[in-house]
Amino acid sequence: MTTQESRTRDDAAIGSHKDYVTGSRPDLRVPVRRVHLTDGRDVTLYDTSGPYTDPTAHTDVRRGLEPVRAGWIAARGDTEEYPGRPVRPEDDGRGPAAGDLRNLDALFPGRPRLPRRGLPGRPVTQLAYARRGEITPEMEFVALRENVAPEVVREEIAAGRAVLPANVNHPETEPMIIGKRFLVKVNANIGNSAVTSSIEEEVEKMTWATRWGADTVMDLSTGRNIHTTREWVLRNSPVPIGTVPLYQALEKVDGRAEELTWEIYKDTVIEQAEQGVDYMTVHAGVLLRYVPLTARRKTGIVSRGGSIMAAWCLAHHRESFLYTHFAELCDILAAYDVTFSLGDGLRPGSIADANDEAQFAELRTLGELNAIAKEHHVQTMIEGPGHVPMHKIKENVELQQEICDEAPFYTLGPLTTDIAPAYDHITSGIGAAMIAWWGTAMLCYVTPKEHLGLPDRDDVKTGVITYKIAAHAADLAKGHPGAQAWDDALSDARFEFRWEDQFNLALDPDTARSFHDETLPAEPAKTAHFCSMCGPKFCSMRISHDIRRTHGSGADVGSDAGAVPGQDPALDEEIAAGMAAKSAEFAAAGNRVYLPLAD
Amino acid sequence: MTTQESRTRDDAAIGSHKDYVTGSRPDLRVPVRRVHLTDGRDVTLYDTSGPYTDPTAHTDVRRGLEPVRAGWIAARGDTEEYPGRPVRPEDDGRGPAAGDLRNLDALFPGRPRLPRRGLPGRPVTQLAYARRGEITPEMEFVALRENVAPEVVREEIAAGRAVLPANVNHPETEPMIIGKRFLVKVNANIGNSAVTSSIEEEVEKMTWATRWGADTVMDLSTGRNIHTTREWVLRNSPVPIGTVPLYQALEKVDGRAEELTWEIYKDTVIEQAEQGVDYMTVHAGVLLRYVPLTARRKTGIVSRGGSIMAAWCLAHHRESFLYTHFAELCDILAAYDVTFSLGDGLRPGSIADANDEAQFAELRTLGELNAIAKEHHVQTMIEGPGHVPMHKIKENVELQQEICDEAPFYTLGPLTTDIAPAYDHITSGIGAAMIAWWGTAMLCYVTPKEHLGLPDRDDVKTGVITYKIAAHAADLAKGHPGAQAWDDALSDARFEFRWEDQFNLALDPDTARSFHDETLPAEPAKTAHFCSMCGPKFCSMRISHDIRRTHGSGADVGSDAGAVPGQDPALDEEIAAGMAAKSAEFAAAGNRVYLPLAD
Repeated sequence: MTTQESRTRDDAAIGSHKDYVTGSRPDLRVPVRRVHLTDGRDVTLYDTSGPYTDPTAHTDVRRGLEPVRAGWIAARGDTEEYPGRPVRPEDDGRGPAAGDLRNLDALFPGRPRLPRRGLPGRPVTQLAYARRGEITPEMEFVALRENVAPEVVREEIAAGRAVLPANVNHPETEPMIIGKRFLVKVNANIGNSAVTSSIEEEVEKMTWATRWGADTVMDLSTGRNIHTTREWVLRNSPVPIGTVPLYQALEKVDGRAEELTWEIYKDTVIEQAEQGVDYMTVHAGVLLRYVPLTARRKTGIVSRGGSIMAAWCLAHHRESFLYTHFAELCDILAAYDVTFSLGDGLRPGSIADANDEAQFAELRTLGELNAIAKEHHVQTMIEGPGHVPMHKIKENVELQQEICDEAPFYTLGPLTTDIAPAYDHITSGIGAAMIAWWGTAMLCYVTPKEHLGLPDRDDVKTGVITYKIAAHAADLAKGHPGAQAWDDALSDARFEFRWEDQFNLALDPDTARSFHDETLPAEPAKTAHFCSMCGPKFCSMRISHDIRRTHGSGADVGSDAGAVPGQDPALDEEIAAGMAAKSAEFAAAGNRVYLPLAD
Repeated sequence: MTTQESRTRDDAAIGSHKDYVTGSRPDLRVPVRRVHLTDGRDVTLYDTSGPYTDPTAHTDVRRGLEPVRAGWIAARGDTEEYPGRPVRPEDDGRGPAAGDLRNLDALFPGRPRLPRRGLPGRPVTQLAYARRGEITPEMEFVALRENVAPEVVREEIAAGRAVLPANVNHPETEPMIIGKRFLVKVNANIGNSAVTSSIEEEVEKMTWATRWGADTVMDLSTGRNIHTTREWVLRNSPVPIGTVPLYQALEKVDGRAEELTWEIYKDTVIEQAEQGVDYMTVHAGVLLRYVPLTARRKTGIVSRGGSIMAAWCLAHHRESFLYTHFAELCDILAAYDVTFSLGDGLRPGSIADANDEAQFAELRTLGELNAIAKEHHVQTMIEGPGHVPMHKIKENVELQQEICDEAPFYTLGPLTTDIAPAYDHITSGIGAAMIAWWGTAMLCYVTPKEHLGLPDRDDVKTGVITYKIAAHAADLAKGHPGAQAWDDALSDARFEFRWEDQFNLALDPDTARSFHDETLPAEPAKTAHFCSMCGPKFCSMRISHDIRRTHGSGADVGSDAGAVPGQDPALDEEIAAGMAAKSAEFAAAGNRVYLPLAD
């Protein structure tokens, strides 16, 4: 392993630079962020931001990212290129009669490329490779990224305890892994809706989210230009992209759920798989008999996909095509290595509905579907709630892990109370940290706009940062090797008044620096041995330094440790003498508690 | 019990109004906030905002609040008025030689009143009364406020499991209780420092904090005008005020910790007790022999009080005056009913230092001091950390409850990671929710400015709201009777598209409303049966309503529950017939999944 030392300063994150750790082959370059401390040391952090933060890389959103995995995929020799399904106006929510009304400027202009799929009967999934004992370049990549042995990665994938979402048609991704033995991951949702939409905004939100640490991005667009938006997002995304194909399928039947068919859905899945979607949420666990279980709920069905499938089931009064065609769906996903995210269509939407019969009935069905997916070598994770009070969170993970053979759990929050709209990143950040500690592998972020509107750029950042906090707090609580080194580096900097290092090590250096500067804007304040909270006289850290300097050995207080004054006169006398000596020593050392600022 | 229905509209919180529940005497009026729902019902919420949100009350910060408890205190006949200690220039951080340099405009002009104290030898504490079996008006007040029997309040106080901080010289307080059987409480810190300061700002921050739900406020001023700032804050505060007398004492010796004496400290405590401080943080658990235990810590001693006392102990090489004069201090506090908040001077300041020997050694000493305080009938709570990773939080509560005879635990956060300066309200909100669930009675808020600067008005609000979320999430998890009614009311409003009710029930109605209006500003959008996240076609709640309308009984799917299709041909046939019938029924009912907006 060699490290390419390209010490170019990264303007997007002062005090750090983008670097790469190279693996067993020159085209296997794992991105990292190196934070340069003023004491000369470096701290290396996991980096999700893609080539955009690499000043030596040339990026152009109209061209897309370099297909870094293309060579690895082709070299496996188990896939073929083929003409692919033609793109139709209705893929972008336009009626077939109207012809192609799309704004041609919005069409993605990048490199033309034929879609690729597994040769007939060949599952080309990381799961299939892992089961065969193969360590793929993708697995080696994540092993370097997570600082574990490649064999650990292979084992976890082979056992179904982790997924490595990597569609053969999304060669631009930097491989990452989702599983409880690895760092907890964060997903950020983006997507236009019928009410507001802009392709540029969605691409910008994607790069912005990964800039702050999103490990995957879900494109949940529901308005027009769904296909084209997704193309732009995929071609420019360094992280795996997830979708809910049902949303687009519903657009194709003009929002009439009962008119959905397996054929329309299947066509949409293939359309998206050919584009390169890495994981798909599939609400195949919503069975007809579970729908009535939601009738007495406080908030019914709150999952869009769940409610659409429930309506379909009722309209036709039979099990959904997602359930009845599940094996066929598996074969499609296996041909592209699309990972299942089995959706929790009946998740609770309020504290009152948490952990109810409907929710857990669906979970048991997801367990059955997980087993079927694994038979077909499809990587699979399971989605979880939702709104859950703290005392009911643990049961969710434990049950999911038991029912689904430890398949990775991927939860939305959960929100621990319903009373704080506009602060649901916080109500859910609490639940997210806890559920991740107990074994959830990936957290779907919630922004301050949840329940109220569509997140803007600031909301996306706030959501990602909040969830990075939850994920890292869980990494610490799980004792993930190396997680605490980041905290330790920041706390060392804090104790030693290395303000610039504190800022640069912060999850959000920009905001940390600006908050500090609001009260003490002068440059010297950044090296001052106190801060604006307490001022020089009250700075506990300064006093601590003084104590350490004078009494650093930790053993100089003598034999009185544990003694109770006044209970042993002889001991008391001995102590008194020792104390007087110590007191004199302190006075001789200057008797000064606070050192001059010039110190 | 009668309710005064003064339906004056409260401008500060549209859609709700301030009301009072009157107890067994006309001057016992417990404030509540009544939220008026559009369906005609009211939801009653706990209210900490004082007379400021009552449009029928006349408030004037230059005069102070009405002394609502004055009659109760006087009627007990166990206190006396006396001339009190003269206020000196050094009380406001001015040198004695300089004379009284205080800005006279800043002197509090309100009603002149002599201080009051217990008659010689008479502890006038709520603890003493409770132990004698007396239910004071203060106890009845909190019983109404918490919706429990007065006897429960008396029992919890008598057992030392709860405190009711209520200095006889702070008759303006609306009584509140801190204990694990009651609603989890939130404290907000305010206070000027040597770097920035303004009396007006601090008074405004206090009323602002209580407006958003702070149950107590600590005035941690360390700059000039400490005495005068506190006077303004106390006279205008409807909630108990806490302080750290050591901060002011240190100002009196010009910041030279080693020059602190019991006499100066005692004089400061009496000064503050005469003003009406309701609880005082006392770092009496920092013993000389514990200081070296911090020498190998990552961040040493981070408590200001702890570091000052550690420096004193080292300078004199004997136990601190707080420890050696603790019994005398108890007698002073008992004469005013000042509650102890035994400070955790050795709390961890980083993840690395959590739950270490220094921290738990001090906790054991706090346990001994708690027992001494109780012998003197002084109400006592115990302070806790700090920075603690999630997996080490529970041990803190369990140990504290065991060592301190279940005295109320009062914690700062804890912060669950060190890596997110500027977001420490969130890193700590996670820990706060968990530690409160496990039994912590009061949470000291942390603002986004923690570690970086002094909180401004927005930071105070963000800190309080975050901690109200943590406290309420804990109330839910503890199964506090009535806590979930708030969540249920809001979720009902959400499911029924009553947008105005959602806003009015929100912890922060203003922000919830403005976030909604950013995307869908038109007034009709507030009654629309969908919102901007999904648009009309994708609204899961609309679909749920449709499902409920068509299949509301929850029993109409028939006998197929639990059956596995394809395993019993006879059953399959029977189901198929029933399904076809149901399908026809759905079609006959209009076959419409989405109802017209005009519905």
